[in-house]
Amino acid sequence: MSAQAPAPTLAELAERFGLELRGDGATRIRGVATLAGAGEGQLSFLANPRYRRDLAGTAAAAVVLSEGDAADCPVPCLVARSPYVAFAKIAALFESSPAPVPGIHPSAVVAADAVVHPSAEIGPLAVVGARCQVGAGAVIGPGCILGEGNVVGPGCQLLARVTLVTRVRLGARVRIHPGAVLGAEGFGLAMDAGRWIKVPQLGGVVVGDDCEIGANTTIDRGALEDTVLEEDVRLDNQIQVGHNVRIGAHTAMAGCVAVAGSARIGRYCLVGGGVGITGHLEVCDKVTITAMSLVTASITEPGEYSSGMAVQDSRSWRRNAARFRQLDQLARRMGPQPKD
Amino acid sequence: MSAQAPAPTLAELAERFGLELRGDGATRIRGVATLAGAGEGQLSFLANPRYRRDLAGTAAAAVVLSEGDAADCPVPCLVARSPYVAFAKIAALFESSPAPVPGIHPSAVVAADAVVHPSAEIGPLAVVGARCQVGAGAVIGPGCILGEGNVVGPGCQLLARVTLVTRVRLGARVRIHPGAVLGAEGFGLAMDAGRWIKVPQLGGVVVGDDCEIGANTTIDRGALEDTVLEEDVRLDNQIQVGHNVRIGAHTAMAGCVAVAGSARIGRYCLVGGGVGITGHLEVCDKVTITAMSLVTASITEPGEYSSGMAVQDSRSWRRNAARFRQLDQLARRMGPQPKD
Amino acid sequence: MSAQAPAPTLAELAERFGLELRGDGATRIRGVATLAGAGEGQLSFLANPRYRRDLAGTAAAAVVLSEGDAADCPVPCLVARSPYVAFAKIAALFESSPAPVPGIHPSAVVAADAVVHPSAEIGPLAVVGARCQVGAGAVIGPGCILGEGNVVGPGCQLLARVTLVTRVRLGARVRIHPGAVLGAEGFGLAMDAGRWIKVPQLGGVVVGDDCEIGANTTIDRGALEDTVLEEDVRLDNQIQVGHNVRIGAHTAMAGCVAVAGSARIGRYCLVGGGVGITGHLEVCDKVTITAMSLVTASITEPGEYSSGMAVQDSRSWRRNAARFRQLDQLARRMGPQPKD
Repeated sequence: MSAQAPAPTLAELAERFGLELRGDGATRIRGVATLAGAGEGQLSFLANPRYRRDLAGTAAAAVVLSEGDAADCPVPCLVARSPYVAFAKIAALFESSPAPVPGIHPSAVVAADAVVHPSAEIGPLAVVGARCQVGAGAVIGPGCILGEGNVVGPGCQLLARVTLVTRVRLGARVRIHPGAVLGAEGFGLAMDAGRWIKVPQLGGVVVGDDCEIGANTTIDRGALEDTVLEEDVRLDNQIQVGHNVRIGAHTAMAGCVAVAGSARIGRYCLVGGGVGITGHLEVCDKVTITAMSLVTASITEPGEYSSGMAVQDSRSWRRNAARFRQLDQLARRMGPQPKD
Repeated sequence: MSAQAPAPTLAELAERFGLELRGDGATRIRGVATLAGAGEGQLSFLANPRYRRDLAGTAAAAVVLSEGDAADCPVPCLVARSPYVAFAKIAALFESSPAPVPGIHPSAVVAADAVVHPSAEIGPLAVVGARCQVGAGAVIGPGCILGEGNVVGPGCQLLARVTLVTRVRLGARVRIHPGAVLGAEGFGLAMDAGRWIKVPQLGGVVVGDDCEIGANTTIDRGALEDTVLEEDVRLDNQIQVGHNVRIGAHTAMAGCVAVAGSARIGRYCLVGGGVGITGHLEVCDKVTITAMSLVTASITEPGEYSSGMAVQDSRSWRRNAARFRQLDQLARRMGPQPKD
Repeated sequence: MSAQAPAPTLAELAERFGLELRGDGATRIRGVATLAGAGEGQLSFLANPRYRRDLAGTAAAAVVLSEGDAADCPVPCLVARSPYVAFAKIAALFESSPAPVPGIHPSAVVAADAVVHPSAEIGPLAVVGARCQVGAGAVIGPGCILGEGNVVGPGCQLLARVTLVTRVRLGARVRIHPGAVLGAEGFGLAMDAGRWIKVPQLGGVVVGDDCEIGANTTIDRGALEDTVLEEDVRLDNQIQVGHNVRIGAHTAMAGCVAVAGSARIGRYCLVGGGVGITGHLEVCDKVTITAMSLVTASITEPGEYSSGMAVQDSRSWRRNAARFRQLDQLARRMGPQPKD
């Protein structure tokens, strides 16, 4: 939102985003905040029921919420089928992202045969290696390093200190956060006469349009074929994706997930933080896996899966864990298991 | 310790650090080492009982230890209530850290409107973005990247290749190790008509005085409010802290911990390596969580909590794990559980 | 393989690598590919039985496989005792790695007293600090940062954006991927009157010949002695190795493993992804640990160990996990456990 434009009224927001206004629509909205933290001129939202307790006392100018919560709202509100989506769209009005500054910073090192679109921005102390291509409006932020032969699509944003090692092809509007490393060699080793030898990693990494890749996340290049992220895949921070993995469109993974080589993950999956997925297996579409679970075999039915065990006080835990170590014996003493 | 100062005698160390000397205090101490590795002129310590076996045979010039171990010490010793603390303070005498070299390295790129204190050091190939402030005596090491609008307090040390993305405010004497990324966008997404849309991340990161942040650790900025580390928080390497998390003063976390968005962790907590803490919950003060445990609900009582299962030989493990998968059935066959 | 050399025939490959040729040896091999993806002029391999289903339909020019699979191969083949090893060696012929370009890039910042071998390459925007040594033929890639007093052996490859903090000594031919941080301070803290104080980390990191270290992996320097990787240790991405750890020769660790301080791991161990190993313990030689297991006590017998629990559908999982929390009670109801 430009600094000159007057702050929108609640009625204008309702109209613009197709929401139902309840209460006075004349209030100008100058920013967004939490229910508990919002004050004059600030819009808030209620999407997660955990925060319903904050609704009655909110000092927000207005709240985006669902039909069911509207009656309890002490201030004007915008009723949305999905309050979180509506809020995200409104909040974007109050985000100021610097526009790309076309051109190559004098401190950047760009190979003679790299092709950089005139509308792209190459930031300070960035390196763009031989045979790279950088598309229209793309931003290669400060300290990014592109090795040989990488392709950055139009509108991509490599925020800072991103490394594309080699043979990485990014679609349009891919957003990559600092410290991410794409296209490093996969972990391919073979034991030969008591020593490891390396298995050449001849593939690349293909990232579809609108993907997002978190800080310090690593995506290895394929051994023979490519490692692939289909469109609109969203990876949080510190995720490890092994060589030849394929992740289906619209799948999202929370922080610290590890996906081993050649696993194939479906579309619209939701993978919780710290989940491990072993290699050479398939997870079908629309699978949710809760935090710190381990997947060791293919999943063929959509649904939710878990194996992350929650804490107990350590004393109880130790007693139970000790019994677990004898669980098979314990079960045998109970005689044969009846058929289900 | 300056190169000119003579090595301190054991008696001088006893006096300086308030320790009880037993044995000859005239020995000069020129360095520190482990019980098993120490030799002439070297001071060692005994704090962890696992290493008591090394005491009898030590060739150290002297040992820092507790009252209870003193009788078994074959060499002069310094008796301390906390041998580890006393040793840490003495060892610091033998650490040579380069002093900051005030000024901006000619290869660094510093925005015209950044404010850098004359006593601060900006290292080679560092980037300091628009509207940043760098306080007195602070060190921005080689390859660090500060995006727009970050504040680095007096005496901070960003060792090398640290990234502050935006809206990060560091207190005094914060120490950050290479590869750490603070202030990246939190992982805020909403599903809208089959595609993800981003929820703007408008908050920042506030880090209190004397915090330490390990190599390749990531701390996302808040969505609406700030992600906060209170004073003296100590984070090891490869930790992931989601948006809007708050970590209480003096809490320490070992490597590879993941804390999901909006979790609130208390003061004086100790979090073991690889622990996962899910979002939107609270952990009270003085909670210890052992390695690789998963916290999925608020913890309201101080104490120690666990859920990390320890290895067995794989054959036994597989048998027990198979029974676990039928545990509910097994328990049902035993009839109703008596009340506690 | 130089661009001028003609593609080798299958017969030439058989001779060169000591493999048994079955079928027409005159075919020229111009590249390598998977069984399912290979076409004219491409060599494939069958090592993992999961891919046996792809053999009958392969359009590869030839396949490297074991004696037992040869009869089912529809095209010429090379029979190998270890098809994966043989394929790795042949595939290396088709890998084009740029040769080092001796010299220091003008944008690099190299300390006056650093010793760089004339045959070594220092890439763009790299930093080589005081008293560093870089050996013959070594490559310090773009954006790498070497702090004070690090030693890089002959033939090492630091691909890009690697950080050696201080007192790191690399043997010959060590290969380090982007984002790795070696020699950061170990996580040594002592609680003194309600605040943390740092325990000086006076040791270094020693890495043996032919080790490989993955992207964003961190290896802390020792507190008093060194953190040590013996020769031919292979670490995947995002591994955390604490201070004073020792890892035996030829041990390989998959992504996201965490090894806590002062653990000693043997030779020829295989550590699965996401495994945690707590501190101050020993794992003997030839131990395999499966994914996401936790090691909390020394392992003294070679063999395979596990504790990573695999997913169930969440509903079953929750029921079983609830019973687990009462497992000790359940077991008590069954009376005393008979002796094994």
